[in-house]
Amino acid sequence: MDRETMLQEAAEFIQERDDFLLLTHVQPDGDAYGSTLGMAHLLQTLGKRYTIANEDPVVDKFRFLPMSEKFQLSSEITRSFSHVIALDCGDIRRLGESAALLADEAEILNIDHHKTNDLFGRANLVDLEAAATSQIVFTLAKHLELDLNIGGAICLYTGILTDTGGFRYSNTTVEVHQIVAGLLDVGINPFEISDRVLESLTWNQVQLIREALGSLQRDESGKVAWLSVSRPLLNRLGASDEDAEGLVSYARNVQGVEVGILFREKEDGSIKVSLRSKYRVDVGEIALSFGGGGHARAAGCTMPGPAEQVQLQVLTKVREAIVS
Amino acid sequence: MDRETMLQEAAEFIQERDDFLLLTHVQPDGDAYGSTLGMAHLLQTLGKRYTIANEDPVVDKFRFLPMSEKFQLSSEITRSFSHVIALDCGDIRRLGESAALLADEAEILNIDHHKTNDLFGRANLVDLEAAATSQIVFTLAKHLELDLNIGGAICLYTGILTDTGGFRYSNTTVEVHQIVAGLLDVGINPFEISDRVLESLTWNQVQLIREALGSLQRDESGKVAWLSVSRPLLNRLGASDEDAEGLVSYARNVQGVEVGILFREKEDGSIKVSLRSKYRVDVGEIALSFGGGGHARAAGCTMPGPAEQVQLQVLTKVREAIVS
Repeated sequence: MDRETMLQEAAEFIQERDDFLLLTHVQPDGDAYGSTLGMAHLLQTLGKRYTIANEDPVVDKFRFLPMSEKFQLSSEITRSFSHVIALDCGDIRRLGESAALLADEAEILNIDHHKTNDLFGRANLVDLEAAATSQIVFTLAKHLELDLNIGGAICLYTGILTDTGGFRYSNTTVEVHQIVAGLLDVGINPFEISDRVLESLTWNQVQLIREALGSLQRDESGKVAWLSVSRPLLNRLGASDEDAEGLVSYARNVQGVEVGILFREKEDGSIKVSLRSKYRVDVGEIALSFGGGGHARAAGCTMPGPAEQVQLQVLTKVREAIVS
Repeated sequence: MDRETMLQEAAEFIQERDDFLLLTHVQPDGDAYGSTLGMAHLLQTLGKRYTIANEDPVVDKFRFLPMSEKFQLSSEITRSFSHVIALDCGDIRRLGESAALLADEAEILNIDHHKTNDLFGRANLVDLEAAATSQIVFTLAKHLELDLNIGGAICLYTGILTDTGGFRYSNTTVEVHQIVAGLLDVGINPFEISDRVLESLTWNQVQLIREALGSLQRDESGKVAWLSVSRPLLNRLGASDEDAEGLVSYARNVQGVEVGILFREKEDGSIKVSLRSKYRVDVGEIALSFGGGGHARAAGCTMPGPAEQVQLQVLTKVREAIVS
């Protein structure tokens, strides 16, 4: 189905209904928050009622997003919804516990850009060319001829900023920069947003970087580098899982490295594996083979420990992918 | 003088002359290289002859820039030039030793965006609103109705990328994103460029980050953070001065910090001070008061040691600026 037809179906889905439940995936990232709150701003402008739910509370870093306080814990919502807009979700399982809020015959509008999207909606606005779901929401706003306010622009900018790695990943197209020019034109302050979202470090994070870099290793080819963060280290620094997220870049960014990996021990002893690649290796496929998911250049999975065994399994798979 | 008039004067300066010497400031950064080589691509397209000189060889990181091999050491050039294009230079002293290549009556076209620019050219295309000199060169190309080739687009993209801190600083305007959309449209690969210029780390740099973070301190207010890199440390890691450049961000990016500082010991024992601020403090003024220069948010100076005394002097001045 072409883009215009999908946009028109999505527009009609929204215009003909009211009282929406907005959902995104579990453990939301910048684009999940940005696209969901961007959509909330659109619905607000259209005078529609909506509820936003997630199984987790909004993480600190994204609480500056306008209307982020509208996120409710799905466990605290006692009714069900017939009209659902799912944002940035590749499949319905990614909704997590929030899926329990769907009425039996619930109609879903599925807005997403993941190539694994299985078109689970009654209406599907799925654009695999889009760098971010927030970009699709921007296009939908234009299709609906809605003027974005500053709040909405901040949310959509944040989503595009994070999913393009600060306009650096190869998904950053001419259209991305044109859309971002349009978002800046609304009057947002790009510096303040990227400062909060991409650059800001807590004192603990800085200490964590220092300690984690002590574990950095690379293989004899120099094409794979990895670092490990143990639970005792995180506990000692009072560092959250969130604090550890960005560490994988240090492995990936080393000159000559194609795949960078972070092994992070979780509370229950399982290992969260974050994978990043530069040019060639599809780490999304590797993560998928271990029951995880993601994109070609950024993906992740969680595996039962012990850490040594996980490292061995993942490194073997990554080396195979590099050689092939 | 308005922008159109300046553009027209610059265009005529180029069109009416030939055999140009292209110069930029000493210790060139990404915008210095990008704007100079972007201009070289323009002159190439126009069929003009040109020579590019600097007192230093091109640093490794920027050798991927198309035509960077055209940079010659000014000490190895034995003739003088009557037609000079100075790029990204606030005043003529910033040309360093290359100024010796100017003929007595040399005519200079001065293309720059520094607010301290003293209009030293016969023609001056100085736009204080521009985020980068590379942006001005792009605008000049459009004024001349020249199509950019990929080589030129890579150079100009690199200049804008570095001088906006990856499209993050508050100088990143609607026009910047529109221009970048135009540069991407030529067919460049933004990922590869930012990967080389902004993200790539040598193994030594990673080790240096780890060691330098061990020196990170902040004052009791939490508004100033600084780190120090001694010459013995740099020598032990075989790290170049260039390797140390980005460290100042770790001080600046700590939550709550307004000014981040890096003190780096040079070969001769003097201390290179790099200053970065977030929102309020004009570190350009602080650097200027110590005989250096730069922008409001990023500046630097070199001071005679010992390190302890330099730290005391700079920290005192920075605290005054924060309180005022």
